[in-house]
Amino acid sequence: MPAPIVEPPVEPSAALPAAPTPDPARVLFRWPVRVYWEDTDAGGIVFYANYLKFFERARTEWLRAAGVQQQMLREQEGAMFVVADTALRYHAPARLDDLLTVTVALAERGSASMRLVQQALRGPTMLAEGHIRIGCVDHGTLRPRRIPRSIQRVLDAS
Amino acid sequence: MPAPIVEPPVEPSAALPAAPTPDPARVLFRWPVRVYWEDTDAGGIVFYANYLKFFERARTEWLRAAGVQQQMLREQEGAMFVVADTALRYHAPARLDDLLTVTVALAERGSASMRLVQQALRGPTMLAEGHIRIGCVDHGTLRPRRIPRSIQRVLDAS
Amino acid sequence: MPAPIVEPPVEPSAALPAAPTPDPARVLFRWPVRVYWEDTDAGGIVFYANYLKFFERARTEWLRAAGVQQQMLREQEGAMFVVADTALRYHAPARLDDLLTVTVALAERGSASMRLVQQALRGPTMLAEGHIRIGCVDHGTLRPRRIPRSIQRVLDAS
Amino acid sequence: MPAPIVEPPVEPSAALPAAPTPDPARVLFRWPVRVYWEDTDAGGIVFYANYLKFFERARTEWLRAAGVQQQMLREQEGAMFVVADTALRYHAPARLDDLLTVTVALAERGSASMRLVQQALRGPTMLAEGHIRIGCVDHGTLRPRRIPRSIQRVLDAS
Repeated sequence: MPAPIVEPPVEPSAALPAAPTPDPARVLFRWPVRVYWEDTDAGGIVFYANYLKFFERARTEWLRAAGVQQQMLREQEGAMFVVADTALRYHAPARLDDLLTVTVALAERGSASMRLVQQALRGPTMLAEGHIRIGCVDHGTLRPRRIPRSIQRVLDAS
Repeated sequence: MPAPIVEPPVEPSAALPAAPTPDPARVLFRWPVRVYWEDTDAGGIVFYANYLKFFERARTEWLRAAGVQQQMLREQEGAMFVVADTALRYHAPARLDDLLTVTVALAERGSASMRLVQQALRGPTMLAEGHIRIGCVDHGTLRPRRIPRSIQRVLDAS
Repeated sequence: MPAPIVEPPVEPSAALPAAPTPDPARVLFRWPVRVYWEDTDAGGIVFYANYLKFFERARTEWLRAAGVQQQMLREQEGAMFVVADTALRYHAPARLDDLLTVTVALAERGSASMRLVQQALRGPTMLAEGHIRIGCVDHGTLRPRRIPRSIQRVLDAS
Repeated sequence: MPAPIVEPPVEPSAALPAAPTPDPARVLFRWPVRVYWEDTDAGGIVFYANYLKFFERARTEWLRAAGVQQQMLREQEGAMFVVADTALRYHAPARLDDLLTVTVALAERGSASMRLVQQALRGPTMLAEGHIRIGCVDHGTLRPRRIPRSIQRVLDAS
């Protein structure tokens, strides 16, 4: 099923908080994403599930820019970030060859999880936005654990 | 980033309504989904974005079972269903070779959109659940339009 | 880039042996695959890389039908099948809602690898065909190793 | 099924010509590809089908760098490039966070199709290589047609 829908959304939705748009001052990171054939579907536009991939690429690069490599996090700390919940709203479609900007803003940082607000934009047009909750788990047991102190500090400084 | 997290979720989330679990009497449809290599990630478990694919396969088969073929909907009515927003929560991981059951329940049916509650289960264990809002749009303009009457009737009877 | 091309292929290709079509007597297994939105691209047809997924689903079910579960193979024998090379030719496009049949035929069985010939068909029309070479490796080192005897016997009997 | 296998390949394969390695002088283009969670499978490494995506990203950027936008090709010339056949061999695995280089070399340019040799490398290590045959088709009928002259000239000059 193709992803997007024209603005405004057809009906108010209970699934997203009323005002997900982050304070621009809190936008920590921007990452470019090009749309290729692999990202599109037969509706001619980006398949909606693929925005989760775009958002994750931006989160990964945001962490990398802050010095956090997930492979090393696993090896050195035995910790792993996992996605606990996602809420996305689709506003307008992206098409083949579009160059998107994906943003990452840290909305909340808890001791064992964090909530990010992310957007995909084409120029000034917001195409999709979402809240992503990430939890920190033990790599072996997959049970929740504290985010390592060193990473908490990096997040708070970002 | 691997998908899931152990229960209960690390922190209460604002992104999902408090009680997404549908009245079992309203569960309309169940569809089996097998987990293949393509669905997994390096965390050893199903990649969280892929639950959106599993949910869509079940919705498509639910519509097909009700006599609605999306390709024909486009050709005969010029209408197309698109995903307007999604909210998913991940509870427990699925692994290679798992056989999942994906459910579809119609939570709300408006004139131009509908909201579905869906779950992915392995036996009695709920792995992921989500709210999916689907809008009906004109195939050419992608602008919202009424769900064709014939399909409204099918949905209400389901 | 969309997958397919009309028959006959534009030019003879050096990449596939001249006669990949298996002796029908050797077709061991058939598996149905439905085309969903996730499988298509903006060309309106199935994205060519996804035939590798369809082929793998059929191989996995072929092995499962013969009593070989890959998760168990890893845990009990420390062995894993990996793809060593693939050669696919695309003949005609598949579209949304198509119901395909994917075949598996064992063309060669060596001591540490095997070669399969697979096809994707819609009714009598062949859409794509391929040769897939699978190697058996040690799960830990990823180094080639013998296919376990019990599985060699299953393959030879199939 | 995870992608790769250690070198050398388990058995000689009939599916790939003996010497696919291009003359380095003919390597036209290099494109960086980062490995994200979405690219990996439960084997802990890049899922083999995803190299087709990596190769296509590089081809698309190679064409873009030469001034050919596929969306415009469709709109202005009614032409579309489609994949006619692929032959890939997997040598060594890529892992999460790896930064790969994907190369594009034009091996043959016919009037209606072309053959590319592509490789994925991590530093000096070749992970996967492939031959990809691309055909030019009419966007409406999907029937083979000549590559537009302007693009033939671009390809010959590249």
